[in-house]
Amino acid sequence: MGPHPAVAAIRLAVRRVLHDVLTDLTDLTRLPGTPADGSPRPAGGPPPLVLVACSGGADSMALASALAFEAPKLGIRAGGITVDHGLQAGSDLRAAEVVTRMTALRLDPVESVAVRVGRDGGPEAAARDARYAALDEAADRLGAAAVLLGHTRDDQAETVLLGLARGSGIRSLSGMAEVSGGPGRTHRYRRPFLQIDRQTARKACMVQSLPVWDDPHNIDPAYTRSRLRHEGLPALEKALGKGVVEALARTAQLSRDDADALDAWAADAEAGVRDEDGRLECAKLYALPPAVRRRVLRRAVVAAGSPAGSLFARHIEEVDRLITGWRGQGAINLPGRVEAQRQGGRLVIRQG
Amino acid sequence: MGPHPAVAAIRLAVRRVLHDVLTDLTDLTRLPGTPADGSPRPAGGPPPLVLVACSGGADSMALASALAFEAPKLGIRAGGITVDHGLQAGSDLRAAEVVTRMTALRLDPVESVAVRVGRDGGPEAAARDARYAALDEAADRLGAAAVLLGHTRDDQAETVLLGLARGSGIRSLSGMAEVSGGPGRTHRYRRPFLQIDRQTARKACMVQSLPVWDDPHNIDPAYTRSRLRHEGLPALEKALGKGVVEALARTAQLSRDDADALDAWAADAEAGVRDEDGRLECAKLYALPPAVRRRVLRRAVVAAGSPAGSLFARHIEEVDRLITGWRGQGAINLPGRVEAQRQGGRLVIRQG
Repeated sequence: MGPHPAVAAIRLAVRRVLHDVLTDLTDLTRLPGTPADGSPRPAGGPPPLVLVACSGGADSMALASALAFEAPKLGIRAGGITVDHGLQAGSDLRAAEVVTRMTALRLDPVESVAVRVGRDGGPEAAARDARYAALDEAADRLGAAAVLLGHTRDDQAETVLLGLARGSGIRSLSGMAEVSGGPGRTHRYRRPFLQIDRQTARKACMVQSLPVWDDPHNIDPAYTRSRLRHEGLPALEKALGKGVVEALARTAQLSRDDADALDAWAADAEAGVRDEDGRLECAKLYALPPAVRRRVLRRAVVAAGSPAGSLFARHIEEVDRLITGWRGQGAINLPGRVEAQRQGGRLVIRQG
Repeated sequence: MGPHPAVAAIRLAVRRVLHDVLTDLTDLTRLPGTPADGSPRPAGGPPPLVLVACSGGADSMALASALAFEAPKLGIRAGGITVDHGLQAGSDLRAAEVVTRMTALRLDPVESVAVRVGRDGGPEAAARDARYAALDEAADRLGAAAVLLGHTRDDQAETVLLGLARGSGIRSLSGMAEVSGGPGRTHRYRRPFLQIDRQTARKACMVQSLPVWDDPHNIDPAYTRSRLRHEGLPALEKALGKGVVEALARTAQLSRDDADALDAWAADAEAGVRDEDGRLECAKLYALPPAVRRRVLRRAVVAAGSPAGSLFARHIEEVDRLITGWRGQGAINLPGRVEAQRQGGRLVIRQG
């Protein structure tokens, strides 16, 4: 008799990702002079280490259990990190408990890392920044090939809605990537559960008798994501039907591919719209499709020193009107003391 | 003392659109041999006619009032059509009442058109199809230059969420166009209120003492859009803040531009991936960005006879795996008895 379907689903998801990690490692070690025997395991050296970031909640405990089961079969060492955000009394005790639980799963090494959460960008962003900094540090120190994160399809749906609320276009609809960076490490973070729903992760913990911890933040209505999870999404499902979460997750993937293609086009187009002195020519910009032109303008404004995070769609629309609705406007002030103005058929964008 | 801000806002929105209509007419009449004096009014012939589609609800009554006010100032005749869907007892009496109200606004001609609503695609789609067929017929018969529709920013936000629920990519997020077709008439329908919120339209009716009629369908929870309006969107606003409607409307515009640009790219790319016999070459398809490749595949499947409306993202993903995940799969069955299969490095897509 095979494992419960929920357990089979989470293990399959993790196995696929571990294969990808090994493929990446093999590609990296297949340098001139290195024997490439086609085996997935890089030749020589200690077995690669893959870490799971585990809060003790159902999603990441399910992920930890699947990693512990699959990694040894592929010659991978499996370890775990839990981050103590220090935001609640007793969070250190809870982190110690998560360490115990990960150790019981035979993960090794297992660590609890305490962080100080700042205030930049609101409580959720500050906690996230502190968490990733800690995970990056641990992964570097332990020489991990990858860090697995337990985000589910439901988390992805929530992220798409949060992006939608910004109204800043399809990049913000593209949610979380299956594979993403860390400083200088483009493939460090992997999210095996983006196609797995939260219910499946919880079920997998239940049938494996894994104790899980429910983060009180997740039901605290002071947090936008929590309100979305417990009120916004259920109301949307009631209005639109049960497929909403899946539809949002698929939207994320399609939007990501679309945004990537358009970014590539804009990068390509940018060279063609500059004159010999590197200045942007308004007539050539005008001839581009609006979606590409706005991306070229955004690139130019960011290159001039405007912080990408403070640059909204309405800023770029205003700069775009220098091209498409020219009626002698003055210079436009942009975040980061950047100015855009039209001078003699050229667009001049510079920091003041 | 000028008009109430709500009235000023709806009039400005309509004035802008009427200017666009005149510009289009002038462009059309500026043919070789036609004197082009730069005036917005086409020379000769009767004054152009612009119709408003009016249900008697607040949005379209506000639109009718603004059209009646602005059109004469631009030498445009303003008329109105109300469609009697025959879905409720007494709908003919109500249509007659709307005719009376439009006549009171000095619209001329004014007509009530009775339609029979079929069942294709569900009650909302069937009513919409019948309505547009009637509006097209009336516009043709009366020789109207344009038909104005009262969709507001709130309607647009709802349309984006309905598209999101389909999960079929950014084209379905792009909502309603400011300008759209009718058979052979690409610029017939115009939506001046896409940037105006429902509250403003209602206020404009109130301060002009215009009676409005509230369609019971709009609060009937049997309709998806009604559930979205009265439960889904308010819950999203509660979770994400009051800017959600505006963000959704902006997403529509950005997505539309992005989808247009990518469609143009795909149309362009398609020629380049066919061999001398017009067959799709897998290697060349593989080299395209995924977002462009999937659009090329979609075009090819539709061209082979698959109805666009029945073709979902998952169908195209399956065809795409013939390119990106080739492991000897058999032919793939697609809607409209279309088959896709890989043969000797070529993709063969044809109707069976």
